Amino acid sequence: MRNFKLTLAYDGSRYRGWQKQGNTDNTIQQKLETLLYRVLDQPVELAASGRTDAGVHALAQVCSFKAETELDCGELLELIRQYMPEDVSALSLEEAGPRFHARLSCREKSYVYRIWNSAAPNVFERKYMYQYPGMLDISLMKAAAAELVGRHDYTSFCSLKRMKKSAVRTVTSIEIVSIGEEITITFTGDGFLYNMVRIMTGTLIEAGRGERSADNVKAALEARDREYSGFTAPAHGLFLKEVRY
Amino acid sequence: MRNFKLTLAYDGSRYRGWQKQGNTDNTIQQKLETLLYRVLDQPVELAASGRTDAGVHALAQVCSFKAETELDCGELLELIRQYMPEDVSALSLEEAGPRFHARLSCREKSYVYRIWNSAAPNVFERKYMYQYPGMLDISLMKAAAAELVGRHDYTSFCSLKRMKKSAVRTVTSIEIVSIGEEITITFTGDGFLYNMVRIMTGTLIEAGRGERSADNVKAALEARDREYSGFTAPAHGLFLKEVRY
Repeated sequence: MRNFKLTLAYDGSRYRGWQKQGNTDNTIQQKLETLLYRVLDQPVELAASGRTDAGVHALAQVCSFKAETELDCGELLELIRQYMPEDVSALSLEEAGPRFHARLSCREKSYVYRIWNSAAPNVFERKYMYQYPGMLDISLMKAAAAELVGRHDYTSFCSLKRMKKSAVRTVTSIEIVSIGEEITITFTGDGFLYNMVRIMTGTLIEAGRGERSADNVKAALEARDREYSGFTAPAHGLFLKEVRY
Repeated sequence: MRNFKLTLAYDGSRYRGWQKQGNTDNTIQQKLETLLYRVLDQPVELAASGRTDAGVHALAQVCSFKAETELDCGELLELIRQYMPEDVSALSLEEAGPRFHARLSCREKSYVYRIWNSAAPNVFERKYMYQYPGMLDISLMKAAAAELVGRHDYTSFCSLKRMKKSAVRTVTSIEIVSIGEEITITFTGDGFLYNMVRIMTGTLIEAGRGERSADNVKAALEARDREYSGFTAPAHGLFLKEVRY
């Protein structure tokens, strides 16, 4: 069996997220496995670096799969592209070492959350940004973000009620950049809990509105209770940006 | 009566173009006139710098309308924004001199046509670019574009079968820029005929594919016959970029 590394961009708007579910075939994993079955004429199990929630996009999601084929990567990529839906793009395909696994081998991931901060809505990117017309103080957001960086138990920033596994993760950096009317928040870390990036974003937006101090954000983290953190920012502003191995 | 200048951005995807038509109310002009009637409680006639075809977008379409109101521009703009559909954005509103008319006062317009030239489709901007994965030679496109600049009869670049009025226009410049996988063609001139920018774009793409020389494009212009020019590039890659007065 050969082992492949496939990198994808997708517009998550019309999908129920990455992961296959019993009650719908409208997930990206399901669509892609069906496509690979068609192209390779064998059942293929597709592993991704991690799930993305319903409505979340990817600039470069990394997947891996094993298959028997005589095709070289260029030929296989061309075939895959022929069957792709218009909202998923195969950016690259390469042969990986036998031990490579998109999720298990992943060292670090970056997500970017995009905010359009203007009284005049952005019509062209409305599916790819959270539009917030009110005042946001970037310096307050940066001070709050600094409290969320490091190695912590992020239970307060997870939507799952009962966590069986550890909620300890390392967030390496949170960068907030404001260019013109767009604010982007880039989160980098070794792993993220369910809804964690979106809850951190909602909490930082509340800080930017002056509703929460950096101390309050620190206390929310230490509380290990979802009740203390901010709202869950909408899925459509979030992109999985990069996966590092 | 006060005279207003309103600047709009819109995603033209779901509209039958700018101009009001008897058989549909799904035009931008119709939607906006209904909105202004609601906001100003009086019938309002909205003039634009020019029509945009079905599916064509605008980065900054300029309109004018006359109305009686006590509201200042800031208040009126805020009201207009409250009722706007999510694919139309009011960028600015200002009071204009009594003789200002969005179409009649217009001196020059720029349109930009966007092409995504890559084997890997662009999923996020697929509604805003023409995706062409084949080879395009930019230098051939530039040579062909040079033949279309100047003061000419553009009958060959108009979809209307019978033209009652003059087809003479001045195209001041056609700029072709290639950055990464995106090619943009910016057309500036004193006016454009029906489908003229899209037919010029289709003709330049044929030149870029090596199917037409610059001489052939010159001959197509001189023929004054639509049969001699290239295909009509799809509407969704075209944006009205700027209107100058």
